[in-house]
Amino acid sequence: MTQLNLAQEGIVSDVMRKVAEDEGLPPELVRDRVKSGRIVIPMNINRDFDPKGIGEGLRVKVNANIGTSSHHADLEEELDKLRIAVASGADSVMDLSTGGDLSAIRKAIIAESCVMIGTVPIYGLATALDRAGREITDMEVDELFEEIERHCEDGVDFITVHCGVTRRALAKLKESNRIGGIVSRGGSLLAAWMTHNQRENPLYEYYDRLLHIAAKYNVTLSLGDGLRPGAIADATDAAQIEELATLGELSRRAREFGVQAMIEGPGHVPLDQIEANVLLAKRLCDGAPFYVLGPLTTDIAPGYDHITGAIGGALAAAAGADFLCYVTPAEHLRLPEVKDVREGVIAARIAAHSADIAKGIKGAMDWDNRMSAHRKKLNWEGMYKEAIDPFLARRTRRESGNYDKLVCTMCGKLCSIKLTNEYL
Amino acid sequence: MTQLNLAQEGIVSDVMRKVAEDEGLPPELVRDRVKSGRIVIPMNINRDFDPKGIGEGLRVKVNANIGTSSHHADLEEELDKLRIAVASGADSVMDLSTGGDLSAIRKAIIAESCVMIGTVPIYGLATALDRAGREITDMEVDELFEEIERHCEDGVDFITVHCGVTRRALAKLKESNRIGGIVSRGGSLLAAWMTHNQRENPLYEYYDRLLHIAAKYNVTLSLGDGLRPGAIADATDAAQIEELATLGELSRRAREFGVQAMIEGPGHVPLDQIEANVLLAKRLCDGAPFYVLGPLTTDIAPGYDHITGAIGGALAAAAGADFLCYVTPAEHLRLPEVKDVREGVIAARIAAHSADIAKGIKGAMDWDNRMSAHRKKLNWEGMYKEAIDPFLARRTRRESGNYDKLVCTMCGKLCSIKLTNEYL
Repeated sequence: MTQLNLAQEGIVSDVMRKVAEDEGLPPELVRDRVKSGRIVIPMNINRDFDPKGIGEGLRVKVNANIGTSSHHADLEEELDKLRIAVASGADSVMDLSTGGDLSAIRKAIIAESCVMIGTVPIYGLATALDRAGREITDMEVDELFEEIERHCEDGVDFITVHCGVTRRALAKLKESNRIGGIVSRGGSLLAAWMTHNQRENPLYEYYDRLLHIAAKYNVTLSLGDGLRPGAIADATDAAQIEELATLGELSRRAREFGVQAMIEGPGHVPLDQIEANVLLAKRLCDGAPFYVLGPLTTDIAPGYDHITGAIGGALAAAAGADFLCYVTPAEHLRLPEVKDVREGVIAARIAAHSADIAKGIKGAMDWDNRMSAHRKKLNWEGMYKEAIDPFLARRTRRESGNYDKLVCTMCGKLCSIKLTNEYL
Repeated sequence: MTQLNLAQEGIVSDVMRKVAEDEGLPPELVRDRVKSGRIVIPMNINRDFDPKGIGEGLRVKVNANIGTSSHHADLEEELDKLRIAVASGADSVMDLSTGGDLSAIRKAIIAESCVMIGTVPIYGLATALDRAGREITDMEVDELFEEIERHCEDGVDFITVHCGVTRRALAKLKESNRIGGIVSRGGSLLAAWMTHNQRENPLYEYYDRLLHIAAKYNVTLSLGDGLRPGAIADATDAAQIEELATLGELSRRAREFGVQAMIEGPGHVPLDQIEANVLLAKRLCDGAPFYVLGPLTTDIAPGYDHITGAIGGALAAAAGADFLCYVTPAEHLRLPEVKDVREGVIAARIAAHSADIAKGIKGAMDWDNRMSAHRKKLNWEGMYKEAIDPFLARRTRRESGNYDKLVCTMCGKLCSIKLTNEYL
């Protein structure tokens, strides 16, 4: 039985209880929201770790994408990325590998991970086809579902499936005159196959097959946004919204089937459209958890897209997005390295926590209050301890060569805190 | 005559014309908004550079704080910070020096700078008093105004003056039970003086003296927020709002006197209170330009406060803030170094530009559209050229060792753009 099946039967499972404890919420509330599809708890039946919930009323969670590509593949480096992602506070890691021994990499990451793991099965299949000298357009429908089942068997907790890239959505895309076109790998693979073969998206046409596999392993579907905007100018267009409406329909069918589902969202979105995007996603998908990539609020900052992503992510999460996929400083330029993973996770966590404060999530502001109390006392060890990155906070201050002083080199003798403590 | 005097007489000055050209707006519109106090053009009568406007309907501008402290002082390093700030796109630089030969540093920075320069005169006076073995509480009122006049004579374009830290505001502060207390240096200096001497803030009591000096040099007053919150928990409290209301009154008096004025704002503010803070500042100060420091949306990220500042700054600017003071990764830890200045300016510019897009500022999105058109063509040289930091964009991609390839190592053969261009 899936967690959703259990909730539908009124049962509070151990997994739900752990999530409730983690969040400081009543277990029954978690169960009720799992039942209504507003919370998901991705956890494959073949895995064992401390589960995290994603959805309404919970702390905003952060995902880190790792994985090899055809141009750069090293298993040990990926395991380092996994470790640094978790050490930096990621709640989830996606293995998006498309280079090297994909099966071995996936299994090693799953074996090593103490957080939930997601994958995008079509990447693996596309890679295999390419290696066999076949075009993506030659893909057989059965091959796709076999690859999906392999991932689920291996123990992944959630899979991205771009079920909403329908022929109707592609027709809208054609009309929409985008600057960036399709920027989702899964979306572009399916669109290529559908266009060449003049057929419907198999993940949409045979959606029940997907539901059967997901139910068997309690795998959560992450309904992918294959037509997400990849340029500010393309945001919130008819193609994107058509796909989103389809995802709403599919999330309902998943729920009826007892399969947990969340919705993936954009992408590149101007700041003034972010709230509307979250509202639309929540409305069209009955409050299903919303998982956003960024969103990036401008296209012009390669090298700094962890920052553009933090701006958009904070705003999206404050408006109701539940799960932030990090963006690293390497985005749009190269595969992220270990250092990029750390920076990406921290930036996304800053966004998530800023939103938790704004939404009044239980306990969120206590952390800030502890930090500020240490600041008021000029208690540096206390500040390092509460810092989101204690290592960097300590190192940065030590770089100034005055770390033995009570105040810091920013204001020196004119430290406002010292002055206030002395005179007021 | 000040720019405001000229506007009040219906004159479109050369300075206004240059600002209008820079923004692609009619000169008469700029004049009318200077007249109503909604735009300021900080430019000392003794200086010569390409002026920038700050205010309603204009691109959001970015300021970089540089300057020595008692614990770290090196003129050459400060000049390097000035150069990197301007090269990174700062519209303005504030010299907040409190260490070394303050007069020489200020004069050197002004002489070298091609952007507007701001200072906080009370820092210089407090430093001088300390060197003379005197307490800040011994400050004579005349000494403060003499220091202010020296800065104006030297050619600074705007000065931060914490005129709103009144006895009434301090009484409210006492009641408010803040975690962080006063975190503004100027605010804490004045509060110490006022409390010890049981007197009103001289910048408030003798505000007309200030107006006379400012008018003489066409210096813009940046009405400082001495009681800005320095902890999320302290945001938008009675003390802060009391001070803001006073700043509104003082900005009106400045306008009547022909002196340009802008309003400084917080600080540490939770994401859900930022829009209200901007609205209040604009309402209470008749639409005067609003100059915010951050705001930081969480207290827990020392080492990453350029990111928390970019989140808050983007949101504030989209809501109507006109001028973003950068925050660097060194904030709360040490004096910023040259590298921090660069990161701080870029992060603030990302926030400013994200807001410009959201507000539909003329030409803002064209930049993004050029970038996205290059992306669609996998035109890397074009992308580097349009990147906010072309050096970093190029270097980041080159680190991957595959920069000779058409695609990048992120997706390798599965590049969605390549796939879409090939198959669709």
